[in-house]
Amino acid sequence: MIKVGIVGATGYTGVELLRLLATHPDVGIEVVTSRSESGKSVADLFPNLRGHLDIQYSKPDPVILSTCDAVFFATPNGTAMNIVPELLQSGVRVIDLAADFRLRDKSEWEKWYGMTHACPELLEEAVYGLSEVNRDAIKAARLVANPGCYPTAVQLGFMPLIKNDVIDLSNLIADTKSGVSGAGRKAVVDTLFCETQENFKAYGVDGHRHLPEIRQELTVVSGKAINLTFVPHLTPMIRGMHATLYAPLVKDNVNLQSMFEAYYKNAMFVDVMPEGAHPETRSVSGANVCRLAVHRPQNSNNVVVLSVIDNLMKGAAGQAVQNFNIMFGLDEAAGLVYVPVLP
Amino acid sequence: MIKVGIVGATGYTGVELLRLLATHPDVGIEVVTSRSESGKSVADLFPNLRGHLDIQYSKPDPVILSTCDAVFFATPNGTAMNIVPELLQSGVRVIDLAADFRLRDKSEWEKWYGMTHACPELLEEAVYGLSEVNRDAIKAARLVANPGCYPTAVQLGFMPLIKNDVIDLSNLIADTKSGVSGAGRKAVVDTLFCETQENFKAYGVDGHRHLPEIRQELTVVSGKAINLTFVPHLTPMIRGMHATLYAPLVKDNVNLQSMFEAYYKNAMFVDVMPEGAHPETRSVSGANVCRLAVHRPQNSNNVVVLSVIDNLMKGAAGQAVQNFNIMFGLDEAAGLVYVPVLP
Amino acid sequence: MIKVGIVGATGYTGVELLRLLATHPDVGIEVVTSRSESGKSVADLFPNLRGHLDIQYSKPDPVILSTCDAVFFATPNGTAMNIVPELLQSGVRVIDLAADFRLRDKSEWEKWYGMTHACPELLEEAVYGLSEVNRDAIKAARLVANPGCYPTAVQLGFMPLIKNDVIDLSNLIADTKSGVSGAGRKAVVDTLFCETQENFKAYGVDGHRHLPEIRQELTVVSGKAINLTFVPHLTPMIRGMHATLYAPLVKDNVNLQSMFEAYYKNAMFVDVMPEGAHPETRSVSGANVCRLAVHRPQNSNNVVVLSVIDNLMKGAAGQAVQNFNIMFGLDEAAGLVYVPVLP
Amino acid sequence: MIKVGIVGATGYTGVELLRLLATHPDVGIEVVTSRSESGKSVADLFPNLRGHLDIQYSKPDPVILSTCDAVFFATPNGTAMNIVPELLQSGVRVIDLAADFRLRDKSEWEKWYGMTHACPELLEEAVYGLSEVNRDAIKAARLVANPGCYPTAVQLGFMPLIKNDVIDLSNLIADTKSGVSGAGRKAVVDTLFCETQENFKAYGVDGHRHLPEIRQELTVVSGKAINLTFVPHLTPMIRGMHATLYAPLVKDNVNLQSMFEAYYKNAMFVDVMPEGAHPETRSVSGANVCRLAVHRPQNSNNVVVLSVIDNLMKGAAGQAVQNFNIMFGLDEAAGLVYVPVLP
Repeated sequence: MIKVGIVGATGYTGVELLRLLATHPDVGIEVVTSRSESGKSVADLFPNLRGHLDIQYSKPDPVILSTCDAVFFATPNGTAMNIVPELLQSGVRVIDLAADFRLRDKSEWEKWYGMTHACPELLEEAVYGLSEVNRDAIKAARLVANPGCYPTAVQLGFMPLIKNDVIDLSNLIADTKSGVSGAGRKAVVDTLFCETQENFKAYGVDGHRHLPEIRQELTVVSGKAINLTFVPHLTPMIRGMHATLYAPLVKDNVNLQSMFEAYYKNAMFVDVMPEGAHPETRSVSGANVCRLAVHRPQNSNNVVVLSVIDNLMKGAAGQAVQNFNIMFGLDEAAGLVYVPVLP
Repeated sequence: MIKVGIVGATGYTGVELLRLLATHPDVGIEVVTSRSESGKSVADLFPNLRGHLDIQYSKPDPVILSTCDAVFFATPNGTAMNIVPELLQSGVRVIDLAADFRLRDKSEWEKWYGMTHACPELLEEAVYGLSEVNRDAIKAARLVANPGCYPTAVQLGFMPLIKNDVIDLSNLIADTKSGVSGAGRKAVVDTLFCETQENFKAYGVDGHRHLPEIRQELTVVSGKAINLTFVPHLTPMIRGMHATLYAPLVKDNVNLQSMFEAYYKNAMFVDVMPEGAHPETRSVSGANVCRLAVHRPQNSNNVVVLSVIDNLMKGAAGQAVQNFNIMFGLDEAAGLVYVPVLP
Repeated sequence: MIKVGIVGATGYTGVELLRLLATHPDVGIEVVTSRSESGKSVADLFPNLRGHLDIQYSKPDPVILSTCDAVFFATPNGTAMNIVPELLQSGVRVIDLAADFRLRDKSEWEKWYGMTHACPELLEEAVYGLSEVNRDAIKAARLVANPGCYPTAVQLGFMPLIKNDVIDLSNLIADTKSGVSGAGRKAVVDTLFCETQENFKAYGVDGHRHLPEIRQELTVVSGKAINLTFVPHLTPMIRGMHATLYAPLVKDNVNLQSMFEAYYKNAMFVDVMPEGAHPETRSVSGANVCRLAVHRPQNSNNVVVLSVIDNLMKGAAGQAVQNFNIMFGLDEAAGLVYVPVLP
Repeated sequence: MIKVGIVGATGYTGVELLRLLATHPDVGIEVVTSRSESGKSVADLFPNLRGHLDIQYSKPDPVILSTCDAVFFATPNGTAMNIVPELLQSGVRVIDLAADFRLRDKSEWEKWYGMTHACPELLEEAVYGLSEVNRDAIKAARLVANPGCYPTAVQLGFMPLIKNDVIDLSNLIADTKSGVSGAGRKAVVDTLFCETQENFKAYGVDGHRHLPEIRQELTVVSGKAINLTFVPHLTPMIRGMHATLYAPLVKDNVNLQSMFEAYYKNAMFVDVMPEGAHPETRSVSGANVCRLAVHRPQNSNNVVVLSVIDNLMKGAAGQAVQNFNIMFGLDEAAGLVYVPVLP
């Protein structure tokens, strides 16, 4: 059994991680930390775990965490970076589900996250945990930066087009829609039921933290400058993320369907839907899958890609466990065989 | 009192029309028709009307309808066209909330709606009822084609940009999201609660009937060919529509905010929000308003317009009553003073 | 125009009051107060009011409030009692939508609300604002304690049975269900979207503040001791309250339907539905109505009453305006003619 | 591998069964039938199954079904009874998730279900599949009548009280609330999104088919006549069922908490929550669990039991698989280890 610690497991990505790890065949959960809930039973806070996980929250203690083989951080941005260096020195392998290690450029990170980075020297080493692109690097990584939810849905949708060099990178549009769980389990008015139910809105049109992350990774992959207009929206559902991607085609006689199928033929957790399909977010709910469909409406020059994930799964906890499996040489699907719950 | 008839008032636009007309100060509801519910009290079918409307459904009878000053059609597509000619001959003025008279080109209409048009000679006469563009024509009209919901939200958002000639019309994108009521009150599996709740999806990516309608009207206004990629989505809420519009800017030094405010300064039911705003669909729920915000994210060359309406109000029944008010020389806001219900 | 002030209008009952008062034909809104939002435009906080209410929040100032004819308190419990005595002395008439004046017994109040009452001398004078029972007293009142939402739905359902002395008061059961807006617009985890959507639960089974309020008023009306089991539940919708009431019948040959219709024949805002009906909460959404149906399932000895209100309307702001209308001798329906929005 | 067939797997209990059986370690799915979808891939209808189940619907054929070890019926009421006798004769063991074999009395069944029973001779043999009561009989059964969702939640809540003889059986009340999936995947107006969202209502107050089922089983267990008032309600969520049960206590000095814990100490899928708890429906979502809490509010003589299940799991498909496991001597939890998905 691989000894695992989870730091900060009181939010939605945390409880989702616990759901997955509690029944993972190769994992022993050693420690679950929370400053605020220390001493409380985890299953008291999250009764869905009753009967599946019998452990109490403890205060985060680097000494104890250092006895783990792997530590997941499901903390707010800016927390992991204060403990990670010590853990790495102790030989612990780390997966950070927050944003601390997602951007390689220190000043870019500090601009978007509004704080000083505590260990900028690790930004270069950290491996961006999108396994469909970086599997080999993840295998060897000490520190994995688990991608954001929007970046996952958007990159997986654009990737085959970019890799095959068939679109104009100077006018990419990502119109994205997220369920409310993406905003986390924080006591704020904005995500109260009565503020979000029966309501749809865009937000962060003038700048969202996931924009530089997407731009960075697409630039790495394409080797070219990218122009991306990224507009996130909030939709009244708990889970689910839908990215609608637009890009001008620059090549003729392209079979987009085959291109997508070929690109993802070995990707266990990416499902290219049949031609003409409209993937639904519920078809991935509770599961670590990205479903994609590619369209060329009215035979115009605009490619439209539809990409859906469960933001807490392939967009967070599921992808983290997938990365963990890869890092530790396990079956990539270990602990991740979930049929989405429908309806 | 203006004598009014409503044909086909068993759907969602029908009951919404009845809600508005039942308390409209200048309207007397003479007849409400339904083939299937004939003889039944309207308030038995829609208990929200109890105490406000005491009338029974009757079978649609052109003779009785001809005694009205105005007749609203809230029927499925392809119904109004069979009765309208007779009503017009009797001097009745008609507002069709369905699509029968929205396209000017008979063959285009027949292609998208899959049937033969019963009175193509009226297609030219019918006035497209977007009052913010066609107010004068509506005043004089015998027959008004009430716009579709998507076309309303999309056109109102693009209009100032097109009229001021600041965008490239060859690459317009309208990424639109609708509440489920847009699909109507039909017994189908697709819009069951359990099929749409906690779910988000695109649909009709390869062709939606509102595409030719938008294209036609924007072409009329711009005098130029339009290239529009139109992707509708279904979002799990009853009411509300959000259009996110993208267009490449082709002029520098444009003050978009002032442009929008100037364009709509006399439009009673269009609200240009302050700079940086993100209009929420709930802020127009139950009211005949379109709220707009215009953005230029990251100072790029893409204009992003956010446009929200209540699809049953400014997108259907409210706009129909607004058109009715204009046709009959009433105060444009008569019977339409509703503060949106929030939360 | 009657000069009106609203204290504490940043919550859901507050914004609902503003929605009603902004278009009330006899009301001039003089002052809207909020300590936290002072200086801000009301319509910036609640964009549904854009175009309908052009006023800024100010800090609550007794001197300014004293220039009003009527002041509504939409404040948290324990706030109004600190200002009300001063306002009454200045001749202002007060309607408190919170609980400060609902219980007559000081110690009972202090037990349930966990604080010392600031003006217990007013508890006796305050009129309990359930106009279907206390209309005459409300007319003359200086201070009206607007009933809680649960108490309104429960009392209106039991009242005809109690007044006609046909049930055993020693075993009343009120199984009640509320939409989430009843919990207010407070930044707490419990009413986040992701905590309440797709979830149903009971709460406060061992004691809820509305229990003593209901017990007090039913005791006053019946003149007898009441035994009431009151179980509230939270249901995933914004607005709406459903009370399912159970009571053992103690008389034979009772026509319950006629009894209910007779009891409420002059009640403008109580609608007794036809025999066999199941009132839906949406049929009262946004309107100041209570709809009732009375059943005797399987001809057993248990009467079952179904009672629905919009918790923010007949359960709060609508009832407050109704009381205001009665106090000032206006048409009882002034500013309250709303057809519920459906769907 | 046990060979399994599923008849009628196009509804919500059907797809839920498929979700469970597709990953059940001891099951091989041999045949999935549907008259209407014959020839279609199951995963095309339910994309959540893509990658987990590669089989096509076939027309129901008794010859093929007879080659199975077990057949599940997820058909509408009145379907299974026409095929079951033939299957039993072939040695197939049958679990019917519909109501065909739930009532022992033929005339009672025919009254409530409005049709003639096709094989009344099996009504006596069929075992009522509530394993917490009938485990031994289920082990040996050829034909299991899987309980209804309401009956499961209600019986599990009342059982410890009845078995310990501490309540007055002449005045039981079950106020129950169900998510919309209980109504099935049928194209009807009543369960459209726009008819059920933001709406709460009672239904079937004067008689619901689950009433005789509950009455029958509680009578069997108690050996006495039962008087039950059963009021079901529809709540706007997909999954989840909450029963709030009321019964007069007739014994003093009863420790209800210990009684419940003792009664269910060996029940793997019933979770007695700690004293004072309010179980939430989401805490069982997607899992085969019933969570219970028992209260005695205000120390009155009324016991209040709160009982929650996922209506599609412990209320249908999960319970069916649990019965299957018992029938075939498997680990009772085989294929049923699901941590509820939260949020």
